[in-house]
Amino acid sequence: MSHESPAVEFYFEFSSPYGYIASELIENIARRHDRPLIWKPFLMGAAMKREGSRPLVDYPLKGAYSRHDMLRMARYYELPLVWPETFPVFSVHAARLVYWAADHDPAAASRLTHAFYRAVFVAGEDIAAPEVAATITAKATGLEAAAALAALKNPDVKARLRTETDGALDRGVFGSPFMCVDGELFWGVDRLAMLEEWLRRGGW
Amino acid sequence: MSHESPAVEFYFEFSSPYGYIASELIENIARRHDRPLIWKPFLMGAAMKREGSRPLVDYPLKGAYSRHDMLRMARYYELPLVWPETFPVFSVHAARLVYWAADHDPAAASRLTHAFYRAVFVAGEDIAAPEVAATITAKATGLEAAAALAALKNPDVKARLRTETDGALDRGVFGSPFMCVDGELFWGVDRLAMLEEWLRRGGW
Repeated sequence: MSHESPAVEFYFEFSSPYGYIASELIENIARRHDRPLIWKPFLMGAAMKREGSRPLVDYPLKGAYSRHDMLRMARYYELPLVWPETFPVFSVHAARLVYWAADHDPAAASRLTHAFYRAVFVAGEDIAAPEVAATITAKATGLEAAAALAALKNPDVKARLRTETDGALDRGVFGSPFMCVDGELFWGVDRLAMLEEWLRRGGW
Repeated sequence: MSHESPAVEFYFEFSSPYGYIASELIENIARRHDRPLIWKPFLMGAAMKREGSRPLVDYPLKGAYSRHDMLRMARYYELPLVWPETFPVFSVHAARLVYWAADHDPAAASRLTHAFYRAVFVAGEDIAAPEVAATITAKATGLEAAAALAALKNPDVKARLRTETDGALDRGVFGSPFMCVDGELFWGVDRLAMLEEWLRRGGW
C-alpha cells in the first residue's frame, strides 16, 4: 500500500448499525485501491443537535423501515447482526478510546473499532461502562486496561473526541457511516459502490 | 412481459430530484425482470406531517450534502438535472393528473410522469399552475387539455390522490423514491441495485 496516496476517512458512530455493517466492508475497498484507511468515530448526538434532527428510530415510518432494512442489509452482506438491548448505545467511552489507542499504535484503531462494533452488534454487549470499554480495549490492542481506564478521565482525551466530532460536522458529516475521499463525501452503506467507482475513476 | 407477475410499484413525489433520477431508471429494471410497473405519485407533505420531519434541504448539513449529491448522482447516471427556480415544487396538480390519465389509458402514466419530471428537472419549468399541468398532460397523453383542467376540480380526482397518499403512508412509504416489490420496500435511488438483486433472487 502506498502511504503517499490520500486516505479514505471513515466517519462512524458506535451506536449505528449501518456504521457497523460498513466497518466490515470498508477496509477491503480501501485496500483494493491502495488507499490507507483512517477510522474517525464521532458523536451523532452533536450532529443531531446541529441538524435539529432525531435518532432514526424515533421517526415512526423511517424507524420501522430502518429496523427492517438493517437486518435485511446485514443478511445481504452475510454479516451477523443482533439488535442491542440498550439502544441507542452510549458510545462516548468507545470513541475516546479509539483515538487514544490509535495514538499509541496506528494499527490498533482497526482492531479496536471491530472489537467495539462486534461487542455491540454481534455479542449484544453493553459497552457503556468505562470498565467494559477499557477491558475490550486491552483485549483488542494489548494496551493496559488500567491505562485505558485512566485515559477516559484525561481532559486531553476528552477534548480530542470533541475536536474530532466538531471537525466531522464542520466538514459536513451528519450521519453514520460517512466516507470521505479526495474531499468527496459519501453517506451510507448504500454508497459504498459509488465510493468505489469514485476511487476507480477519480470522480466524474 | 407477463402481466400475471406481481408489479413493481414506484412511489414518488414530483418535487423530488431523487424521484426524477429513479423515474429514468426504474422501467428498465422492471422490464429486465418481466414485471409490470405501477406509477404511484404521492404527496411528501403528508409523509413529513406524519413523520414530524422537514424537507431535506431544510436541514443544514443534510441539505448541503443533498444538493451536491443530487447533481453528482445525475452525472453518474448521465442524466440532465437542473435545480428548479421554485423549490419545493407544487406537485398536487401533476400528481392528480397522473392518476386521472392512467384511468383513461394505463400507458399514459409513464409518458405523463416523464413529461412532468422532465419539465421540472430538465426544462426548469414551474408546473404549479393548473393550466400548465393540463397542457403538459394533453401533450404527453393526447387527452384533452380542457378535460384535464376540469378533472383538477373534480372531487373524485382530488379524493383519489388523498387515498393514494394515505395508502402509501399506511404501507410505510415516507420518502421519494420508494419501490415496493413482493411486499418489500426499498427507499432511494441508491437501493435500485438491491431491488434488482431482490428481483433476481426472490429475496434473501
